Parts: sequence; C-alpha cells; structure tokens
Amino acid sequence: MNIISVQALQTLISQHGLDTFLADLMAQLRTDFSRWGDFTQMPRPAMHVPGGVIELMPICDQKYYAFKYVNGHPQNPTNGKQTVIATGQLSRVADGYPILLSEMTLLTALRTAANAALATDVMARKDARIMAIIGNGAQSEFQVQATRLVRDITEVRYYDIDPAAMDKFARNLKGGGFKLVRAKSAEVAVRGADIVTVCTACKQHVDVIKDEWVAAGMHINGLGGDCPGKTEIEQSLLERCQILVEYFEQSVIEGEIQRFEPAVARRKIVGELHELLTNKITVRTSPKDITLFDSVGIALEDYSALCLLQRLVTQYGVGEVCELIPTPSNPKDLFSLVVAKR
Amino acid sequence: MNIISVQALQTLISQHGLDTFLADLMAQLRTDFSRWGDFTQMPRPAMHVPGGVIELMPICDQKYYAFKYVNGHPQNPTNGKQTVIATGQLSRVADGYPILLSEMTLLTALRTAANAALATDVMARKDARIMAIIGNGAQSEFQVQATRLVRDITEVRYYDIDPAAMDKFARNLKGGGFKLVRAKSAEVAVRGADIVTVCTACKQHVDVIKDEWVAAGMHINGLGGDCPGKTEIEQSLLERCQILVEYFEQSVIEGEIQRFEPAVARRKIVGELHELLTNKITVRTSPKDITLFDSVGIALEDYSALCLLQRLVTQYGVGEVCELIPTPSNPKDLFSLVVAKR
Repeated sequence: MNIISVQALQTLISQHGLDTFLADLMAQLRTDFSRWGDFTQMPRPAMHVPGGVIELMPICDQKYYAFKYVNGHPQNPTNGKQTVIATGQLSRVADGYPILLSEMTLLTALRTAANAALATDVMARKDARIMAIIGNGAQSEFQVQATRLVRDITEVRYYDIDPAAMDKFARNLKGGGFKLVRAKSAEVAVRGADIVTVCTACKQHVDVIKDEWVAAGMHINGLGGDCPGKTEIEQSLLERCQILVEYFEQSVIEGEIQRFEPAVARRKIVGELHELLTNKITVRTSPKDITLFDSVGIALEDYSALCLLQRLVTQYGVGEVCELIPTPSNPKDLFSLVVAKR
Repeated sequence: MNIISVQALQTLISQHGLDTFLADLMAQLRTDFSRWGDFTQMPRPAMHVPGGVIELMPICDQKYYAFKYVNGHPQNPTNGKQTVIATGQLSRVADGYPILLSEMTLLTALRTAANAALATDVMARKDARIMAIIGNGAQSEFQVQATRLVRDITEVRYYDIDPAAMDKFARNLKGGGFKLVRAKSAEVAVRGADIVTVCTACKQHVDVIKDEWVAAGMHINGLGGDCPGKTEIEQSLLERCQILVEYFEQSVIEGEIQRFEPAVARRKIVGELHELLTNKITVRTSPKDITLFDSVGIALEDYSALCLLQRLVTQYGVGEVCELIPTPSNPKDLFSLVVAKR
C-alpha cells in the first residue's frame, strides 16, 4: 500500500508543476462532476467539538471508494497550528482493499482552488479581470493561482483581519505578473471587483461580504460558509444572487443557504454544479447577473484529487510502501500472524 | 505522526503477549463502555457496493476522535483475499491533529474477540465449559483465545462450511490445553454447548443457528449479523433469548434485531452492554436463561483499541514516523510548501 507523505506530494508537484497539477485537477473534477449519477454520496458526517469540527467525507462509484478525514479549528493558528488538517484514503470497491493513503491538507487546498476555478470558469463574466480575496489564510494563494488559469487576472486585491496573513500572502504572490493591492478593508477590496473569493475561518454567522458593496456582474466564490453556524455573506445579498451549490443535501446543512428553511433554500438556488457542467441549467444569463458559488467542499472533489494523485504517483514513482494490509498465505489465517510471533 | 504497520503491531503483540494484549483490551473496553455518556456516537455510515459493504466508524469524546475504515466482502477468500480489511486513525479533539494511523485488520479481530469475551464474562453462566464456534474464518481463533480468559473452557467444538477453514482452525489451536472437537454440522457443535459464538460472513439472512438446537442456559455471541440483510440466527430463537446489544440505534439497522420493526426491537432487548457493565440492568437472572449478545461492532470498540495501541506503541517504541501533516513555519503559509519547490 502506497503512502503519500507531505514530502512525497511536494516532490510530485515540483516535478509535475503546480499549474499543470491544478489544470489536471480541474479536468478531473469536470469529468467526475459530469458523471454525477455514477456516485453514491451522503452529506458528510460531522462531529462538533469544543473549538471546531471534525468530519469524514465518504463517496464511491463502481470502481473506487474514497474518504477524507478533515478538521476545522479556527483558533489553531494562535497556537502555531494549522486550521485544517486532512488525511485520506482511496480503496478498490471490488474487494474493499485500500490502495493509497495520503496527506490531504495540501491536497485539500489544491482541490478547493481547482474546484472554485472550475466554477468561476463557468459562472464569472468572460471579461473578469479584478479579483478580490477576503481571508488570506492557508488556502488563499492557491485560490489566486487556480483562478488565473481560467481568467486573465490583472489585479488581485487582498484583505484579512490579520495583517501578518496579508504580509505572507503578498510575499508568496509578488512578481506574479499582476497588480497586488493591499486593501484597507473588505469593503475596499470588494467594491468594483469582478471576482470575489471569500475564505475565512471564523465559525459564526459573519457578514464578511455586505450586500451594499456588491454591484451587478460580480461573481462570488463563498468558500468559508461550510459548516452549520458558519457563514460569510450578508443574508440580504443572497436574495440578489444566482446561487449555485455542489450538492444540495449537504449545502443546505453547511453552506450560505443554511440561513433559509430547506424548502425555501431549494427554491433560492439555480441548481448544482454538475447540472451546469452538463448544460442542464444556465446560471449567468446576463453580464449584470450576480453569481454566487456557495461551495462547502464535497467528497466528490476529494475523490477526484485522490484519483489524480493515484495516476501521478504511479507515473512519477513517488510515495512510500508501508504495509497496513496483512498478507497471510491463507486469507482466513489471520491468527497465524500473531501466534507465529509468540 | 506515528504509523503502525501490520509488522509493527505483530512486534508489539509478540513483546507484550497476546493474552496480555487481549486482557488489557478487555479492561480498556470495560472502562470506556462504563463512561458511555462521554462519547459522541452515530450509527456507522455504510455504503453497500456490489459484493460487499464499506463503512466508516467515527466516535469522539473530549480528548480523542477515532475512526475506522472497514469493508466486508464475503467472496474475497475465493480470490485469495481477506473478507475484512481495516485501517484507522486516532486524532486529538483539541486541535484536530491526527496522532496515530494504524492497520486495523488484526486490531479489529483482537477487539472483536476482547469485546465478545467481555460480554461473555458478564452474560454466560459461571460454570460454562464447552464452547462452540460456528464460522472458522479469520476471527475464529481470536474468539477462542479471548473467551478462555474469562471462562475455564475445556472443550471447543468447531464447524465451518469450508473444511479447509476447519483444518486451519485446528492447526492454530491444537495443543492449547483443551479438547478440540471437529463437528460434522453446526447442529452437532451447538447442541449441549454452554457458549456458542457465531461469526460467519455470508451477507444474507441465514439460519446458521436454529432455535431447536438451543437449550436452557446457553450464551450466544452473535457476531456475524452486522449489516442490513445479514443475520445468522433463526428469528424464532430471538424470542427465547435475553438480548443485549451494544448501541441500539446501530444494532437495529445491522444486528439480529433488524428482523423486528424498530419499536418492537426496542422492547425485545434487555438493554445495552454499557448498562450491564454499570449494573443498571441484569441480563441473566437464572442459570436457565438463554442469553444473546447481538453484537455488530461499534466505533467505541475501535476507540478503545486505538487508545490502548497508542499507550503501548509509546511504551514499546514501535511504529514508523511518516509525515502526513504539513509543518510550515507559519501555520497560514501552506502555499510556501508548493512554491518553494518550483
């Protein structure tokens, strides 16, 4: 069984190229979302603990079963720890045997960015040039990197309540061939932007984006509203948006649309991402529409990331064999593994 | 982060001793079941796939979050593969960080045996001497090994539809200081036994144990009825038993009691294991009672196994460090891990 450490994934990305990896991931996501009916899915089982949330995200089709373990602890950075840590596993459906176990902290940042870029590609105006990113934490630069693959971004405005996070963001993205604008407030960043990506960590209902800042034509990626009691967008703004979600059953629990009663939420959304990708619905009908990708992150995205990873680790020969699966000569003779040693 | 391979667990067990490990696990299970109210639990999310089932089993208390990945594919042995493979992870609740990742195939066999022995200890007659074990697959010898820690077993009768499995069972347990009796049928094994443990893999409603074979005073561990549509005990026998389950909400979906309507099932059981261990209920009120531990396997048992393992790997210094958790110098600077490598 192949285990992919952080180091192994770093090596793989340095060889394959970050932009190539993100582009491949977008292609994989597009393919997998487009065969939505092939998957068995469920809203992710979450356990709410003091200071955060811990979740498992399972999914399967006829070939693979994937799951991710992931937490969200907004106060972790005050103790030098990351807000989100994730691990995941890919298994064969035919026999239930695991084949790949991986770090998924980096992989989650990558797939979240690739997925938002995919949605941006099919939702934002083609002439979108100015991107605003509110929340400059661990995922923020990945978002910019991926968005640049789908739109010709000439200006990136950034804002975070933590000035050190803004410093880090600027340091990582300077010299990238676009104008970097340090905004004095979320309002300054958002007003006049074409694409607004929001990824903050606070586990409360916070109006990170206010209705009055938002003008016709904007596309918003709402990524941080992803847990019961955790939203980022002023509720009155939702009324003005063409809203797309990934998977209604989970989004109504975790997304911005949790602020409506389920039956109301169902009417407020235009539909799900897979429907847009397969041309079953249209979200942006005019350059003046305000579009919102109310993204919570679903297991299918981790499935896509793990499947791509599985292909690439074979191609590049990275990873480490660590035997987590017993191999008794007789499959029914597990006991010999512990008595032979006595 | 410490990763426990099959080899590492074998080393640990050979050093600690199999019986000591099982006894420690029983003690840990007793402790954890006795503080039932400390845990956040849920029936395990299962996905039914062609040929089997794949499940995740999450649980947490205030200190640890544990989960197990486990499959059940009854046809695997015909292809030289094991029916059940499992992996698991223990994480800290305070920050969501994983601390231990382990093989759990062996560990599942060990905890299932320790748990059934714990139940047998508090349910079977004190003078029980004859054990019958129906289903001589991967878990069977572990069951005998653990049961011997709680009762003075002088005779073990065994039966499986697969003669090769019976051969293997006898080979592994010969010379153990008890009489080994190869039975010609399940009926021959069961009639007159004091303790009957049933652990077969067939994913159907099968009457592995028939009502008419069972006399007053018997204790039955029904372990293989652990999935919707998979039971082992003739329904009419259930009517005669004092039934104990682990966790009603899950057992009513997966256990022998799935054959009743939920409201009926609730009345048919005496209660849950934790209630018996904390003296809130009595199951055996007379030597003539027939008792049934309708066990499905719950996440708490994996929690106990992982916590014991965590203690022992520290004590014996086994396991392998494999970094699945990124450690950027700034917790919000995940991006530097992929751009530094470009």
